[in-house]
Amino acid sequence: MAMAVKELYPEAKLAIGPSIDDGFYYDFDLKKTLTEEDLTEIASKMSELISKNIHFERIELSKDEAIKLMEKNGEKFKVEILHEISDKTVSLYKNGDFIDLCRGPHVGSTGEIKAFKLLSVAGAYWKGNEEYPMLQRIYGTAFFSDEELTTHITRLEEAIKRDHRKLGRELDLFNIYNDEAGAGFVYYHPKGTALRFAIEDFLRKEHIKRGYQQVITPNLAKINLWKQSGHAENYAENMYFLEKDKEQLVVKPMNCPGHILIYKNKLRSYRDLPIRFFELGTVYRYERSGVLHGLLRVRGFTQDDAHIFCTPAQLTEEINKVFQFASDMMKTFGFEFECDLSTRPEKYIGSEENWEMATSALKNALDSRGQKYEIDEGAGVFYGPKIDIKLKDAIGRLWQGPTIQVDFNLPERFDLHYIGEDGAKHRPVMIHRVVLGSMERFIGALIEHYAGSFPVWLAPIQVMIIPISDRHLDTARELGEKLIEESIRTEIDSRREKINLKIRDAQIQKIPYMAIIGDKEIESGTVSIRSCKKGDMGKIKVDAFLDSLRLEIKNRVYYNDNKGRDS
Amino acid sequence: MAMAVKELYPEAKLAIGPSIDDGFYYDFDLKKTLTEEDLTEIASKMSELISKNIHFERIELSKDEAIKLMEKNGEKFKVEILHEISDKTVSLYKNGDFIDLCRGPHVGSTGEIKAFKLLSVAGAYWKGNEEYPMLQRIYGTAFFSDEELTTHITRLEEAIKRDHRKLGRELDLFNIYNDEAGAGFVYYHPKGTALRFAIEDFLRKEHIKRGYQQVITPNLAKINLWKQSGHAENYAENMYFLEKDKEQLVVKPMNCPGHILIYKNKLRSYRDLPIRFFELGTVYRYERSGVLHGLLRVRGFTQDDAHIFCTPAQLTEEINKVFQFASDMMKTFGFEFECDLSTRPEKYIGSEENWEMATSALKNALDSRGQKYEIDEGAGVFYGPKIDIKLKDAIGRLWQGPTIQVDFNLPERFDLHYIGEDGAKHRPVMIHRVVLGSMERFIGALIEHYAGSFPVWLAPIQVMIIPISDRHLDTARELGEKLIEESIRTEIDSRREKINLKIRDAQIQKIPYMAIIGDKEIESGTVSIRSCKKGDMGKIKVDAFLDSLRLEIKNRVYYNDNKGRDS
Repeated sequence: MAMAVKELYPEAKLAIGPSIDDGFYYDFDLKKTLTEEDLTEIASKMSELISKNIHFERIELSKDEAIKLMEKNGEKFKVEILHEISDKTVSLYKNGDFIDLCRGPHVGSTGEIKAFKLLSVAGAYWKGNEEYPMLQRIYGTAFFSDEELTTHITRLEEAIKRDHRKLGRELDLFNIYNDEAGAGFVYYHPKGTALRFAIEDFLRKEHIKRGYQQVITPNLAKINLWKQSGHAENYAENMYFLEKDKEQLVVKPMNCPGHILIYKNKLRSYRDLPIRFFELGTVYRYERSGVLHGLLRVRGFTQDDAHIFCTPAQLTEEINKVFQFASDMMKTFGFEFECDLSTRPEKYIGSEENWEMATSALKNALDSRGQKYEIDEGAGVFYGPKIDIKLKDAIGRLWQGPTIQVDFNLPERFDLHYIGEDGAKHRPVMIHRVVLGSMERFIGALIEHYAGSFPVWLAPIQVMIIPISDRHLDTARELGEKLIEESIRTEIDSRREKINLKIRDAQIQKIPYMAIIGDKEIESGTVSIRSCKKGDMGKIKVDAFLDSLRLEIKNRVYYNDNKGRDS
Repeated sequence: MAMAVKELYPEAKLAIGPSIDDGFYYDFDLKKTLTEEDLTEIASKMSELISKNIHFERIELSKDEAIKLMEKNGEKFKVEILHEISDKTVSLYKNGDFIDLCRGPHVGSTGEIKAFKLLSVAGAYWKGNEEYPMLQRIYGTAFFSDEELTTHITRLEEAIKRDHRKLGRELDLFNIYNDEAGAGFVYYHPKGTALRFAIEDFLRKEHIKRGYQQVITPNLAKINLWKQSGHAENYAENMYFLEKDKEQLVVKPMNCPGHILIYKNKLRSYRDLPIRFFELGTVYRYERSGVLHGLLRVRGFTQDDAHIFCTPAQLTEEINKVFQFASDMMKTFGFEFECDLSTRPEKYIGSEENWEMATSALKNALDSRGQKYEIDEGAGVFYGPKIDIKLKDAIGRLWQGPTIQVDFNLPERFDLHYIGEDGAKHRPVMIHRVVLGSMERFIGALIEHYAGSFPVWLAPIQVMIIPISDRHLDTARELGEKLIEESIRTEIDSRREKINLKIRDAQIQKIPYMAIIGDKEIESGTVSIRSCKKGDMGKIKVDAFLDSLRLEIKNRVYYNDNKGRDS
């Protein structure tokens, strides 16, 4: 693609062009703002180059030679990249007159590309930093067959329909008021709040059942706490610091130090362990504005966060229980999942011995379950190794989900202990874990997973009552009160509009059930039920409707359009 | 008292000595640190002065003369006070050789004091400011009869037993980690969290029933939002400001601007009004460390906050509904209450006409209910007048509670509107209201009101299951699971301790019910129930116990020790 762009726009400067999940992009510095028509032209130039089946030749040069070459070609971004590389020799690929930096591997010739599509063009800052120039990024994808390309394009179109930012607006779930209140801070509108609390209430009950204790810790704390935890040193660029009345404070980026204070408040015995503190804890972490994205990448979010304090001997069993918990949650929401085990990064605290021990505890837990996983070398957090669980949504995409992280370091730093059976002091181990991730990211994924059409137990409005005319309004209100009394989220469409319009509007809002009330229904003590997914379900006695609704909510029934009924 | 102190310690410097609720104090600058014995000595000197029945003589002097007199007497604090007074003449009271500044009124002679008691001595900063010298404050109380004094002293002793800081520690409800995490920031331990969520869950349901919609807004927002609201100008000293990546942010001290953004996000019609947004919103407001006090005066707290957007015509009815709501809540928790109407303060924004209109809407609502109230001139907030409801607890003390506040100003500042029946734009009115106040203050009051012995629906642990020996542990666990499945907060005391010790410990923890399981109980499918308040209740079939427990929780039954059963 870059070759085609350079042929069409010789003045274009090349920045970077990596492959990404399901495709690639390339950033160009270009005077002209590219349009859809320009993409078509670039694509047709690409087809021409592919039909010529031009061979790619790998060349190795010393770094200095490569810099000279790129300076000659006027590729200032490439020169900058080369200066930042520490290697002495670099590889380049050349086809025809076009030459570019590339580590490889690479297809042998242009003819091997059987199917490609340029998808979109967007602005992107050089190095993702808004202080550097804005470049133009062309997204595309390429496959070895037309069939693969078609499947991929269909999925992309489906993904656009499911975009949580679009659905969030259409279903009035949330908003981010960039101009008025700042980027990355989410405001939940009433319907998004109803959805979130439906998830949270369920989550709290599940935690209590599984032996967790809830706590609440404040958003502000003295900087000392973060010096002791190591965050002030290792995480400062993401933290919000402030000062008031000569006291330095931090807006909490993590819940752990607060939970540690509560642990330390009492003398703990081995008989008390494991202690599991759970908090729906709202944290703030600064991110560059360039990387913010809807609910998926924000600056303030609420984690379903817990810290488990246990003896080293309890570690593997506790990890196992957490994994079971996460796996049950994924099933409830209809997600499949994949696993990664992330090991020690370059920047870390704590002894190698502890890292070793923590990593093998995670491995043992996964192995004992027969769980498949990939090892992600060096991707652990600075204070410990972790398991990452990635959700696979209804259209096969992966989302960041639960994490389970072992930590031998914070117990050291905060000098935690418990009294063992031997009467002596021992050091507990900590597990940091989230089973959904953050409410923001999880809700973002959930909106796309369900395409906004939530199962009844999660739907912001569960039943829309539709009186056919004004004289049915009293019965509608009676039913409404009855449903609200049972904590069923209900609205009444009392507008003086035609019944078909009211049904269409409820359908657009993806409300699971409409309960229509007219003369016949009042006479027979029934309601006409219309399901958003299954259409007209006929007249049903009010109590029978309530019974089936209660059951569907209690069992958290989930209909997967692709797979039929699932619960 | 000051006269007695000066006779015993002539070098003592007098600071201030006001009367307070139920008593008085006087601050002295004194080299010696006063002890209990010193208080006894001061009290006996006071008795001596009372028996002499010394006449109090009122003297009026010009400010300059008074300054000269106090300079001569070496009373540097009095001189400082006099310099800050704007009046030209001041009044003093003289008895014997003792003379002190006092606006009056005053008893005629020392003999009129029939009963008094010195209660305690504590440190207090001059002007409440920790940068000024620390003085010694003697607290006391005085009455016209011994009987009144005895009643008062009994209540004070009762209040000490009920102190929420003491009970909070003993019952392990919460803590404030001053040294590690900062003063004024509350950490809820598991039991305090259980109590808080019991209240919050109830509160959320009540709001939904009453037509409120829940929202969630972030803790950080750009400073612009607070400039537009007027808080940055009028409330800056209480606000936490911060800066990150050149953007100025504020830790939200109020939830209103966030709710306003959500209101403004859509075009609103008169048919949509009133719109009632509710949020359990956590806010941060700086307070001097000298005034912080347990849960009652903190720097971070969660308000049960709502903003009602309505037409001017709906105002009185909405205020009425809020009042009814608050009054229902007070009844549920067993509080009686008193009312104040606070009018325009010196520092205010908005037109006088709007203040007039808002104040009379509040008055009309109170009058239409036949509700008694006091007028507190000038005690309104800078953006509107308000009704304050003060809770009267089980031992007759008053606590700050619900507030209802009308606001014509923020709708102006944020240019809010709705489309009226006439198709034109109109300005809505806002009501700010809390029905409990803040969770922190309310829980503080609740702990003292119930003396830590919570009704079952609120108790952090509702049932303690006590197996008599290890062989009853399995049955105990079965019952535990059954109760937890029903969301009843349950613990099992599985320690190998004597049954009487386990009962005593549960009693100390003020757990409403103990369910004791031994051989006889297992044989007969019963549990022996012991109530914290009513003692042994005999053997009861497990299901019958569950039924009565469910009913007691559902009805939120409250036993007031002073008044017998109430619900």
